[in-house]
Amino acid sequence: MSVRLAIIGAGIMGADHARIVSEDLPGASLQVVCDASPERARKVAEECGAVDVATNAVETIRRGDVDAVLIASPDETHAPLSLAAIEAGKPVLCEKPLSQSSEECLGVIAAELSQGRQFVQLGFMRRFDPSYRDMKALLDDGSLGGAIMMHNFHRNVEAPANFTGQMAITNSAPHEFDVARFVLGADYKAISVFQPAGIDASKSGAPVFMVLETDKGQLVNIEINNNAAYGYDVRGELIGEKGSISLNAPVYTRHNGDLMAYERYAPDWRPRFAEAYRLQNKAFLNFVRTGVFPAIASDAWDGYCAALVAEAGVEALRRGERVTITRTEKPSLYKQ
Amino acid sequence: MSVRLAIIGAGIMGADHARIVSEDLPGASLQVVCDASPERARKVAEECGAVDVATNAVETIRRGDVDAVLIASPDETHAPLSLAAIEAGKPVLCEKPLSQSSEECLGVIAAELSQGRQFVQLGFMRRFDPSYRDMKALLDDGSLGGAIMMHNFHRNVEAPANFTGQMAITNSAPHEFDVARFVLGADYKAISVFQPAGIDASKSGAPVFMVLETDKGQLVNIEINNNAAYGYDVRGELIGEKGSISLNAPVYTRHNGDLMAYERYAPDWRPRFAEAYRLQNKAFLNFVRTGVFPAIASDAWDGYCAALVAEAGVEALRRGERVTITRTEKPSLYKQ
Amino acid sequence: MSVRLAIIGAGIMGADHARIVSEDLPGASLQVVCDASPERARKVAEECGAVDVATNAVETIRRGDVDAVLIASPDETHAPLSLAAIEAGKPVLCEKPLSQSSEECLGVIAAELSQGRQFVQLGFMRRFDPSYRDMKALLDDGSLGGAIMMHNFHRNVEAPANFTGQMAITNSAPHEFDVARFVLGADYKAISVFQPAGIDASKSGAPVFMVLETDKGQLVNIEINNNAAYGYDVRGELIGEKGSISLNAPVYTRHNGDLMAYERYAPDWRPRFAEAYRLQNKAFLNFVRTGVFPAIASDAWDGYCAALVAEAGVEALRRGERVTITRTEKPSLYKQ
Amino acid sequence: MSVRLAIIGAGIMGADHARIVSEDLPGASLQVVCDASPERARKVAEECGAVDVATNAVETIRRGDVDAVLIASPDETHAPLSLAAIEAGKPVLCEKPLSQSSEECLGVIAAELSQGRQFVQLGFMRRFDPSYRDMKALLDDGSLGGAIMMHNFHRNVEAPANFTGQMAITNSAPHEFDVARFVLGADYKAISVFQPAGIDASKSGAPVFMVLETDKGQLVNIEINNNAAYGYDVRGELIGEKGSISLNAPVYTRHNGDLMAYERYAPDWRPRFAEAYRLQNKAFLNFVRTGVFPAIASDAWDGYCAALVAEAGVEALRRGERVTITRTEKPSLYKQ
Ligand SMILES: [Mg+2]
Ligand SMILES: [Mg+2]
Ligand SMILES: [Mg+2]
Ligand SMILES: [Mg+2]
Repeated sequence: MSVRLAIIGAGIMGADHARIVSEDLPGASLQVVCDASPERARKVAEECGAVDVATNAVETIRRGDVDAVLIASPDETHAPLSLAAIEAGKPVLCEKPLSQSSEECLGVIAAELSQGRQFVQLGFMRRFDPSYRDMKALLDDGSLGGAIMMHNFHRNVEAPANFTGQMAITNSAPHEFDVARFVLGADYKAISVFQPAGIDASKSGAPVFMVLETDKGQLVNIEINNNAAYGYDVRGELIGEKGSISLNAPVYTRHNGDLMAYERYAPDWRPRFAEAYRLQNKAFLNFVRTGVFPAIASDAWDGYCAALVAEAGVEALRRGERVTITRTEKPSLYKQ
Repeated sequence: MSVRLAIIGAGIMGADHARIVSEDLPGASLQVVCDASPERARKVAEECGAVDVATNAVETIRRGDVDAVLIASPDETHAPLSLAAIEAGKPVLCEKPLSQSSEECLGVIAAELSQGRQFVQLGFMRRFDPSYRDMKALLDDGSLGGAIMMHNFHRNVEAPANFTGQMAITNSAPHEFDVARFVLGADYKAISVFQPAGIDASKSGAPVFMVLETDKGQLVNIEINNNAAYGYDVRGELIGEKGSISLNAPVYTRHNGDLMAYERYAPDWRPRFAEAYRLQNKAFLNFVRTGVFPAIASDAWDGYCAALVAEAGVEALRRGERVTITRTEKPSLYKQ
Repeated sequence: MSVRLAIIGAGIMGADHARIVSEDLPGASLQVVCDASPERARKVAEECGAVDVATNAVETIRRGDVDAVLIASPDETHAPLSLAAIEAGKPVLCEKPLSQSSEECLGVIAAELSQGRQFVQLGFMRRFDPSYRDMKALLDDGSLGGAIMMHNFHRNVEAPANFTGQMAITNSAPHEFDVARFVLGADYKAISVFQPAGIDASKSGAPVFMVLETDKGQLVNIEINNNAAYGYDVRGELIGEKGSISLNAPVYTRHNGDLMAYERYAPDWRPRFAEAYRLQNKAFLNFVRTGVFPAIASDAWDGYCAALVAEAGVEALRRGERVTITRTEKPSLYKQ
Repeated sequence: MSVRLAIIGAGIMGADHARIVSEDLPGASLQVVCDASPERARKVAEECGAVDVATNAVETIRRGDVDAVLIASPDETHAPLSLAAIEAGKPVLCEKPLSQSSEECLGVIAAELSQGRQFVQLGFMRRFDPSYRDMKALLDDGSLGGAIMMHNFHRNVEAPANFTGQMAITNSAPHEFDVARFVLGADYKAISVFQPAGIDASKSGAPVFMVLETDKGQLVNIEINNNAAYGYDVRGELIGEKGSISLNAPVYTRHNGDLMAYERYAPDWRPRFAEAYRLQNKAFLNFVRTGVFPAIASDAWDGYCAALVAEAGVEALRRGERVTITRTEKPSLYKQ
């Protein structure tokens, strides 16, 4: 019997999830597409063969014909809607961030604790990307020796004109915060933030460079450059005592032309992480069916940790100095 | 309503198809796994949640609860079982080759002609690989100028001890024959075959090198090296008047270690063509549902063409000279 | 005491040799630049600080203040001027080809035999290129196992409008003929030539594809494509029983821009083989000083072998069939 | 007339310079090899055909048959011997660092100022490396837009057991300090230093990571990892508003073997920077002949700037916080 899913939010990511469910997720069916705009909901529902459309998110979550929920609505709705799903006793795959406020994340955690089980899988899909998984596997099996340092580079073609350094930290960097923490199996204890000065922000946006220190002593360096102009390019390298491993964006062809040998970049993140989204959503479906939280997925606690680091990063940017990070104690509900 | 599939043959490829159907093909259900060995059938059926198992292929094809068929049984059964499917009026995705005998392929074509429609989609999955599709798209949109030459390299880690040059032509090369013909939109008119001499065949197998000439005047060069030792490696380059495009096997990580920067090869073809198989099988499902033969898939005529070239290649190898290729006229049933 | 060199021919290659002598060849001095055009001779002489200029090649070779000669004049003068140098008892570095006529090459060989020593080093500079040297070293030390096949690709940006397939064989391919024979340590016994048909020769020139068979049983495949449009690109791969090794054109930078990651091609051969020329000329200087012919350099016999293969290739192109190659016996003067 | 050079110090670098002079530097002759160990001096002198050997550096510098000096003796002798050369009125190519003390560098600057001309070319050879030159050219011609950030990675196979983070800053990083400053055409105003903690220093040495801010507002990030284990690997990327450019270590071959496609790393820096050393030494020879200081070479002022940054880096490491950098005013003798 098919798992009936509701998708909340029919924007770019919601539409992408709807497509994945309808084309690549056997055992799931698209029950409802819900969006504040009924036209937007209807468009995606038709393209992907959804049974119904809706405009009220909380009511949609509570429907009897909905077994589980995918949240892809605006960021500020993520935590409230996750709470609604927990209350309704339904598993939820929530796009990142859980919340930009670590306090609000703790509220979601409290709700799960009061139910005595996990409901929220967080959409930090990079954990499912084969590049990061190879990286983690190589570290875990000892091939690299101990981890020393990890470099991370996040580059977009362009950002909206009003994109600030603070937004780079709160909106873009959480992917890097989460995945580096996942690969290293470590938590952050301090963050320093640097920002190039004197460049024309209207052209080059507001790149930031961060140095994070983990409780295992490693350095995690992160460049966020949302106006890189040349293409969508996420890179990373993990340096161990015996060698290093780098992410490689898979490409299917190489070209020769115009005195160049070249490979193409995609203009946005979807082709690069298509496989990660597919695997993430399969893992969520399995979670819905078995009740066993996916071993490698992000959860509410991971969402809290990401929010905490972003908050510290914003503080470090504002004060121009290293900021230490302290966490509340990790509840035993979350995997250790 | 789900399309109920029977898989005939529960070997490596049959198991792979069963896994694709169960994990990645929404709208299809695995009805029967059929294999001469009931144990083998049962093993795959259990792993992939098939409804039933069977040992008789023809009876399986005729079952009322089977809507369409995937043939992955031994090569010599491909044509007879395709005929059975045509007779039963059921679409069939048949692993390559349709037959090693062009004569037998014509028998399948005759059966389709007498039904007045196509049933057989042939498993030359490379046509669905993003590398070849990029290559064809770039040629078709004029970016490369006219096509001049295409180089193809097929390398396996190792072949069985008794693998001969003739088998390289009849068993391995058809993938190249088909996909180069597909990319170029051309047919072959002659083939020359060369074979390295004086090497220890027990170690290096029986590599062959072929030069094919198309009716559009292009050269298609093919190396088949089934004992390449170092990894599974399929390469190709299309040279046009303005530039060239090469296949690139997607990799997700690069490594530094032991005084080397390296990327890994897979030991066999499945990781390299995983996406192609997935897309091929989706196209087949769509064919079953709509009755419209997939625009880019191989059909019975393509299977005939591949067999014809292989026969000419065997002749060229035997005689040590260029052999010309002549085809029967193409029936209008097949796409032009 | 400096070796005094005369350069015969002040065209592109002559000017390049003059620059190498003046900038990168300690122990050598540029005594004379000789060219039929006194202006051209003077221009190069001034740029490179030559002591004198001249217009008569034979007289220049005979001058008392000239210890050794570099021949970079038109192809048809190579053999006659080499003979003049032999007669004058002076070592000569002669640009390829020694002659397009194998008969004329035998004349140079006869002259050396009558003197009882070697004078002619032939400018097949690729033997000094680190790529080919690595390739040969890896084959010779057993790392690759026995050699099975070698692929060679020669691509120029464009050729003169009247450039024919025959010229591709006689003017471009000799570099490949010589270096593949050098790497493999084998001689050719047969050649087959293929030519794409039906392309617009005014745009795509006259590419040819050749399959050569060696006396050790290996295949040597050569693409000559002088109108490749996209850049100067020489590639090669040697396939052995245990693995393969490919040439790689050294590049110093990689770029990201315009949705591409790219590396640049040079528009001609000089940057690609700059190091090879430098090392070749150093080896020649050492030959002049010590009288010991450089272990890896091409000599008059190698020039004869290259001419012989080119002649067979032209015959194979004309007749459209495989042509066997027979050589005269190799004199003991030449290294075995 | 040949320029007669004395090489002071016959260790690894001295021997390399001697080889370059004797093999690749027309117009220069190796007059004296001087080393505290007469055996070491003699060995290098014989290999490279030096006229004489010596053990006293200052006397060697003053010899009438020595026109110019290459200093490759231990670091602490660089400044005193440079002063001796200035006093003797002889141009000197001094290996880096000029001194680890910025104060002592100012002494060398004062000596040049009192003579009213430059004598000291500093051996920051990377400025001559084609990779960095391409990078600088692309920035200077506007292709990259304004420079935003530069990443630098310095990795050695292994460092001596007692190698500390401080030594990474004072001994290894100056190459990066100098070349990034050269490429960007900017000076540093602050430095922050981070060090991974909790790793086994006996295996992983003492890597450091630095973030430098320039007076133009750019960030320069530097990883120094002298126990990278896998190979000698210097990388760098310059990010501009329109794209980026990365250094690429030139390699001549690619390999396939053992389920890998790989390229080799060298175990030390000499192959990587062979061309840079050659070009640097040619520029020095031209300086000796013409008296015109090479446009792109490092001078005493650049040596002072590198020492100043290293001192600030050591302070930043010790204090665990960002340290600002202030310079004395730049004398007009040095290029602006
Ligand atoms: Mg996400
Ligand atoms: Mg297949
Ligand atoms: Mg040449
Ligand atoms: Mg140096």
